Amino acid sequence: MTRHTFRCPMRWSDMDAYGHVNNVVFLTYLEEARVDMLFRMGAELGAKALSEGVLVARHQISYRQPLVFHSRGVDIEMWVGAIKGASFEMRYEVRDESTVFADAASVLVTFDLEAGRPRRVSDEERRFLVKYLEPVQS
Amino acid sequence: MTRHTFRCPMRWSDMDAYGHVNNVVFLTYLEEARVDMLFRMGAELGAKALSEGVLVARHQISYRQPLVFHSRGVDIEMWVGAIKGASFEMRYEVRDESTVFADAASVLVTFDLEAGRPRRVSDEERRFLVKYLEPVQS
Amino acid sequence: MTRHTFRCPMRWSDMDAYGHVNNVVFLTYLEEARVDMLFRMGAELGAKALSEGVLVARHQISYRQPLVFHSRGVDIEMWVGAIKGASFEMRYEVRDESTVFADAASVLVTFDLEAGRPRRVSDEERRFLVKYLEPVQS
Amino acid sequence: MTRHTFRCPMRWSDMDAYGHVNNVVFLTYLEEARVDMLFRMGAELGAKALSEGVLVARHQISYRQPLVFHSRGVDIEMWVGAIKGASFEMRYEVRDESTVFADAASVLVTFDLEAGRPRRVSDEERRFLVKYLEPVQS
Repeated sequence: MTRHTFRCPMRWSDMDAYGHVNNVVFLTYLEEARVDMLFRMGAELGAKALSEGVLVARHQISYRQPLVFHSRGVDIEMWVGAIKGASFEMRYEVRDESTVFADAASVLVTFDLEAGRPRRVSDEERRFLVKYLEPVQS
Repeated sequence: MTRHTFRCPMRWSDMDAYGHVNNVVFLTYLEEARVDMLFRMGAELGAKALSEGVLVARHQISYRQPLVFHSRGVDIEMWVGAIKGASFEMRYEVRDESTVFADAASVLVTFDLEAGRPRRVSDEERRFLVKYLEPVQS
Repeated sequence: MTRHTFRCPMRWSDMDAYGHVNNVVFLTYLEEARVDMLFRMGAELGAKALSEGVLVARHQISYRQPLVFHSRGVDIEMWVGAIKGASFEMRYEVRDESTVFADAASVLVTFDLEAGRPRRVSDEERRFLVKYLEPVQS
Repeated sequence: MTRHTFRCPMRWSDMDAYGHVNNVVFLTYLEEARVDMLFRMGAELGAKALSEGVLVARHQISYRQPLVFHSRGVDIEMWVGAIKGASFEMRYEVRDESTVFADAASVLVTFDLEAGRPRRVSDEERRFLVKYLEPVQS
């Protein structure tokens, strides 16, 4: 089991009138983390389709602590919660060394953009994802 | 049982490089709908605290159909899923007349900003929220 | 001489940690006003190309007064400052009845997206734009 | 004469439906560059007021080449174009090694936030800014 950590850059304007990072912007951070993991690492490892044919089907996020802008950014720790026939689940913690600001999960559907319908997770995608698989405890 | 519908203005720049409204922007639409319902209507009806002392604790959203920019905007239909001691749940559909683009739910915690801790849902807040209460079917 | 006024919807999250609409967001308001004027009105009037082949070449904006979120939005008053061979200038005031929050100007280049180069302002585009022409005083 | 270069992180969602970084987002990049230079470096060097009492009075930006998302970000090269009694001008190039995507200038007013009016550029602010001063050629 391995987790991938993305140091997500923050922007001063991510903060809203309450002086905290707006709750919506956390989802942008998760998007950047997915882009980093799936587009960049996937491309390096051959699972190029991950960057081209994946749709977001579902998000859930729980906010734990308020977050303020810091020039060093914030860490997004990521792993895979499940791999199914035509979808997989990413799980995340938005955190620094000592504090978890939010935890979240996304269901991502592997999609055939040309045909306009879901497709099966390919073997190379599965080999890439399984390294980060950390099944949710029952 | 009553639902509140907010006609949410869209921005052309809400679309991303796929030519669809970015999945994160849906959460901004929900935020605008809450601002409309809780800040404006709540202020009119006396539940002013709703606009001042509520924090987002949790979101979940499921994407059903891709959405593109339209100058007439998109409807956010809203109701209350539950009212508890120090929190309540808002439920939403992002839709037009014929299509549901997403459905979502948020847990909102009533918060005493000065004391820095959760507080009980007040009687006037409860009277306002209960009009929109549509308990989730078990 | 005619000016076009677009009532631009505001979003609560347009405000930054200073509690004012962030200076960058004013440019988003101008973009929405251009979309409204050029895409929608242009399409109605036959100058369809305006919505498809125009690039932003330059912006300038001067901030006059701080602006805060209001659910009624803010007005963008627009007119055309100049029409040249392959470009034109839009001018704007961001305002309500009594206060000008910012004034701005953009140079827009008519562009042949397929050929990848500027193209001449067409006759139908010129007929549409000239109605809003209010040349800058020397 | 010294220029400061800020490697500005990009976000995939900075691109709009044309598949290019939206023209408005360039202004966000300039904001992040100012935050980096003025807040962080200013704080280190003692010109703390720069991070607390500066308002944007004016922007101008010219777009040279379309820009697409890249995980390495984009460079913002910055210098000071002028220092006046109660304002100064920042100048910028948005660029990589070989291409200038945009050049821009901002007028920033030193402001006494408590008194609600402009104030003189302090001696320590002037000493900090003058190191980056590269007066515009006449």
